[in-house]
Amino acid sequence: MVHAPDRPPADAPLVRINLYSDTQTRPTRAMREAMLEAEVGDEQFGDDPTVNALCDRMAALMGKEAAVFLPSGTMCNVVAILTHCRPGEEVLAHETAHILSSEGGVHAALAGTQINPLQGSRGMFSADTLRAAIRPRSRYAPPQRLLEVEQTANIGGGAVWPQAELDAVVAVAREQGWSTHMDGARLMNAVVASGIPAAEMTAGFDSVWLDFTKGLGAPLGAVLAGSSDFIGQAWRWKQRLGGSMRQAGICAAGCLHALDHHVDRLAEDHANAKALARGLRQIPGMAVEEPDTNLVFFDPAESGMDAAALVGALRLQGIQISMLGGRIRACTHLDVTAAMVEETLAAIRTIVAKG
Amino acid sequence: MVHAPDRPPADAPLVRINLYSDTQTRPTRAMREAMLEAEVGDEQFGDDPTVNALCDRMAALMGKEAAVFLPSGTMCNVVAILTHCRPGEEVLAHETAHILSSEGGVHAALAGTQINPLQGSRGMFSADTLRAAIRPRSRYAPPQRLLEVEQTANIGGGAVWPQAELDAVVAVAREQGWSTHMDGARLMNAVVASGIPAAEMTAGFDSVWLDFTKGLGAPLGAVLAGSSDFIGQAWRWKQRLGGSMRQAGICAAGCLHALDHHVDRLAEDHANAKALARGLRQIPGMAVEEPDTNLVFFDPAESGMDAAALVGALRLQGIQISMLGGRIRACTHLDVTAAMVEETLAAIRTIVAKG
Amino acid sequence: MVHAPDRPPADAPLVRINLYSDTQTRPTRAMREAMLEAEVGDEQFGDDPTVNALCDRMAALMGKEAAVFLPSGTMCNVVAILTHCRPGEEVLAHETAHILSSEGGVHAALAGTQINPLQGSRGMFSADTLRAAIRPRSRYAPPQRLLEVEQTANIGGGAVWPQAELDAVVAVAREQGWSTHMDGARLMNAVVASGIPAAEMTAGFDSVWLDFTKGLGAPLGAVLAGSSDFIGQAWRWKQRLGGSMRQAGICAAGCLHALDHHVDRLAEDHANAKALARGLRQIPGMAVEEPDTNLVFFDPAESGMDAAALVGALRLQGIQISMLGGRIRACTHLDVTAAMVEETLAAIRTIVAKG
Amino acid sequence: MVHAPDRPPADAPLVRINLYSDTQTRPTRAMREAMLEAEVGDEQFGDDPTVNALCDRMAALMGKEAAVFLPSGTMCNVVAILTHCRPGEEVLAHETAHILSSEGGVHAALAGTQINPLQGSRGMFSADTLRAAIRPRSRYAPPQRLLEVEQTANIGGGAVWPQAELDAVVAVAREQGWSTHMDGARLMNAVVASGIPAAEMTAGFDSVWLDFTKGLGAPLGAVLAGSSDFIGQAWRWKQRLGGSMRQAGICAAGCLHALDHHVDRLAEDHANAKALARGLRQIPGMAVEEPDTNLVFFDPAESGMDAAALVGALRLQGIQISMLGGRIRACTHLDVTAAMVEETLAAIRTIVAKG
Repeated sequence: MVHAPDRPPADAPLVRINLYSDTQTRPTRAMREAMLEAEVGDEQFGDDPTVNALCDRMAALMGKEAAVFLPSGTMCNVVAILTHCRPGEEVLAHETAHILSSEGGVHAALAGTQINPLQGSRGMFSADTLRAAIRPRSRYAPPQRLLEVEQTANIGGGAVWPQAELDAVVAVAREQGWSTHMDGARLMNAVVASGIPAAEMTAGFDSVWLDFTKGLGAPLGAVLAGSSDFIGQAWRWKQRLGGSMRQAGICAAGCLHALDHHVDRLAEDHANAKALARGLRQIPGMAVEEPDTNLVFFDPAESGMDAAALVGALRLQGIQISMLGGRIRACTHLDVTAAMVEETLAAIRTIVAKG
Repeated sequence: MVHAPDRPPADAPLVRINLYSDTQTRPTRAMREAMLEAEVGDEQFGDDPTVNALCDRMAALMGKEAAVFLPSGTMCNVVAILTHCRPGEEVLAHETAHILSSEGGVHAALAGTQINPLQGSRGMFSADTLRAAIRPRSRYAPPQRLLEVEQTANIGGGAVWPQAELDAVVAVAREQGWSTHMDGARLMNAVVASGIPAAEMTAGFDSVWLDFTKGLGAPLGAVLAGSSDFIGQAWRWKQRLGGSMRQAGICAAGCLHALDHHVDRLAEDHANAKALARGLRQIPGMAVEEPDTNLVFFDPAESGMDAAALVGALRLQGIQISMLGGRIRACTHLDVTAAMVEETLAAIRTIVAKG
Repeated sequence: MVHAPDRPPADAPLVRINLYSDTQTRPTRAMREAMLEAEVGDEQFGDDPTVNALCDRMAALMGKEAAVFLPSGTMCNVVAILTHCRPGEEVLAHETAHILSSEGGVHAALAGTQINPLQGSRGMFSADTLRAAIRPRSRYAPPQRLLEVEQTANIGGGAVWPQAELDAVVAVAREQGWSTHMDGARLMNAVVASGIPAAEMTAGFDSVWLDFTKGLGAPLGAVLAGSSDFIGQAWRWKQRLGGSMRQAGICAAGCLHALDHHVDRLAEDHANAKALARGLRQIPGMAVEEPDTNLVFFDPAESGMDAAALVGALRLQGIQISMLGGRIRACTHLDVTAAMVEETLAAIRTIVAKG
Repeated sequence: MVHAPDRPPADAPLVRINLYSDTQTRPTRAMREAMLEAEVGDEQFGDDPTVNALCDRMAALMGKEAAVFLPSGTMCNVVAILTHCRPGEEVLAHETAHILSSEGGVHAALAGTQINPLQGSRGMFSADTLRAAIRPRSRYAPPQRLLEVEQTANIGGGAVWPQAELDAVVAVAREQGWSTHMDGARLMNAVVASGIPAAEMTAGFDSVWLDFTKGLGAPLGAVLAGSSDFIGQAWRWKQRLGGSMRQAGICAAGCLHALDHHVDRLAEDHANAKALARGLRQIPGMAVEEPDTNLVFFDPAESGMDAAALVGALRLQGIQISMLGGRIRACTHLDVTAAMVEETLAAIRTIVAKG
């Protein structure tokens, strides 16, 4: 039985170092003050100047004609797939894609789409793999309609798709007449890590979205960008899903603040992630994936330590970290300093040494 | 072709008096400061104390076991119907219900439900009308599953369902084994106008929600309440729809502020509405519906004035008011004072006199 | 709880006169022999000559480019609405339409469409009523997409839409850019009764279907006709729903036989219906609707007889007749002779006389 | 653009030997005569004795409480999944399953389910593979609801699941609380090949269906069996989809005839398939999968012959055979004799020899 999230027990040890997720960043005082002063209106009438400013700025950043503000990244995916596809059509995505494993089956439930899971290392797939998944055009096969790519690839270890690989899979989609959608939850991490401008990276995609609640540190909100026509239709689904808000400029102000102040600093998170990986690798038996961005996946099995036991032992010391499919994931962000990384490494070393 | 909302033209006359809708209230400075100071966490992990406080308080107010915070009232309806019903089932509601005319067909599109529109004056229907709509239980008829009631009834003129009428329709639902859902977008207006406590008014309903962006003046947010089991399942749909946010306590703080400061004052809005109705009735040929709460519907046809022309003439003077199905609707709220009502009446008198 | 149909009790009195429904006609020996000899192939490969012949003939009869064979009339409606509409769109139909009350809510469940029920006498509505149901084009209103008409109107008493009325509602649809669909379950009854050729009657409709299991007497099958493009898309849904069969020519042969032998004779059913109505009207207190075709609705209330009691008393004498919403419906068809009508009238006279 | 099936060109060479599919069998004269004489009634009222007899017999054969007659095997899968699952739930099936690749995406389109494709040789997967696909129970993961197995596995080469493997995957499903569904399109081939009674083979499955249009040689029809409760709910969906027919006993009679006369003889088809495989294997460079039942998959690549070229050359000689994903599939059935197999082998030998 599904239920409302359990609230943390009153006697849970305080989390001092949160490597669990960049979604758990708390808005800074400066961000809150920007929200306090935001000029607002009714966004449903095009009348919220702060929402308008955010959408205009995001459209420009992504190199698209238009953009729409939504309460979450999941809703960006839901709205995009409902807009691109009709029931019975197929979306092609990596087998570890968020839309497949972490959105509750919504794309089948509400959009009636089937997701064709592609294989490939680090959350990415090649043009050849994509091409091998092309179905015959017949009444029997689900019609294929949409290519979906995650940039960065979360379960792929925060991997950044090389531009040539992106171009190659987009070329297959174009040849087949499919639309293209980028789940850019952590797109700015890819931009900062690669030095490639967002508009260049997303040029082959009909739709793309950015989440403001991850490394960018806003309390809520995501923006979906595309052609004017696409965004016009997306508004229909925003309304139907209940994603239309009122004086949403309060929240949009936090996102604008994040664009001004929290993008360049993602480089620090990446440096912290690399430092963490470097330190972990010095622990014998620790299998560590080299991070492209702010996610460090590692597996202590060969060190003689059980992953779950290590996570539990860290939690007792106020260090929170997550498990994803047998591996451990550590996530650096706004609220994680270089000193915290050092403290975490020291704690892990001690725990592993004790066995 | 649907499109993103048009932005107001740069040279549009400033709106000085906004009788268009209570959704257009702007958050007060005090409300914004409450939001600035809100303690927050990740609501998806039960870890946002302000969201938790709002949900607990709303559950208690509505006399339910549990509650969930959502970005909008429309999403409360979407989540509730997805939770109560399976595809192919029927919802019984008034023919002017918001779910039927103003939510883009979402309850068919996503929940696969058919809505059976009932007739009755002022947005309400009798137990006899409801009983006459009972279908035979056969493979041919859509199975009936949910009674839906709007309190107050928006297109019904903001009418307050008398408690005995509510009890009577709920009794039919219970007898038939249907679930019951109250769209309480403006529930607190009904509570303040009738003096009946919310928990008493909603006792017969398995689910009920309140919108904070109408007369209560918050920028966004609504709360859906029901049994623990119902809310547990509702969370599944909140997640799927993309209604799960992160540090949503920022917004929940505005709602808590509204509960503390903006409920009792709804009486002022009702007094202003009555004053407006009284004044309008003194204009010859003006057909005015007596308001129960904060919505005044009137029709100037017999005064020799075209409704659309009157709305247009007021707009030129900075007074915004809406048309709904041939009638004019004026809505009083937080940002509308008694003096503004007087000014509006004076303006209408002059316009009608000129013809 | 829904369940499989109950089988008739072993000791149920034999039905000698079946006025219950024209769906209960049994195939004649001649029809069975035509089926026995049918040339067949795999219809999914365009390879069944009898299915092809039936589709070609029906397309010509309806004045459309193409046609598709389906197992039932309900599937014709399901396929047509899935092809015409996208989820969230609205269909406008009479409030007594089969799609609204007798197809289990499937058009919401599977096509995600909302049906807007229109009022009007005898199962028909005027162009003015249709025009009054036009919704504003906004993000809030469900987009309207399809006009649906039943010819003849079943619950409307088997009424035949006058051609001018059909033309008038089609004109509104055209003006609004809606598609048009005719549920022609009993279309040939309308054609025979009015003398208007089918192609002329259906000229304003993008899709139309005819059921062969009603007065035409085939054991199963219906044909949906429309443009080549429409029928191409309809095949996709036929396949998805599991309506694609294999050597379906066996069944199509029964339908071809019906077109050759059972169309003109519908005039007899109409004459029998009129005779039945005439006879019933001579019974004091019997309220009888004048039949246009083969359905006679009447209400014995004023004769002092309860409708259900009358139906039960007739059943004991081997005469089966149905009740639909308080009225009695008698249906004439292939298996009902003029003598049976006389016998039924005599039985009713006796029952009513006894009280 | 999807379109109606192309009809064969008038000058296409006659098909003398049809190894294309067992769906293309034509009803025998004896079967047609059984259909001619069938006693019929309205199946929607439980009143067709031949349909009742078929359902009773199939329920007994499958060891279930009840059964329902449907126009096709695809509809059996559609009805079963709509009955077992709610939108957003996940079905676990082999990656080559018919429901995933050959039913047009209907299970996403209409049931809103996601299919999780499992890997494994010959269309089967192990309990370990199934166990590795278990998702965490959280709001994020699609809830898993149904295990689906194909017996025999079509794209798996007509492979028969060993009973121990079936039992092992069913045990995982039971442990997880999932329902179980068997696509038994060619179930009787598995029964005849293995000697295991159908009821024993299907004992672990909540629902199972058999197609009568494949090796059993009927023109249309399939029967889905399960508990009384399941079949009661399945009738609701049969009605909604338009799978409810009228005097369907005509078709059910063909199926009963097939049960009496065409089950044991499947052994001949299997022997013919083995003979074909044996003969093919003697051709140098021909890679041939050993057939369990009536499907022979082979790949001529190493013989220096292109698969498509071989198929085309055979077609010119009146021998039809199909390609499935780069391999050739030959299917033996009722209309294929041992002599035809020899003739086909001779033709292939000659074509390959010529190069």
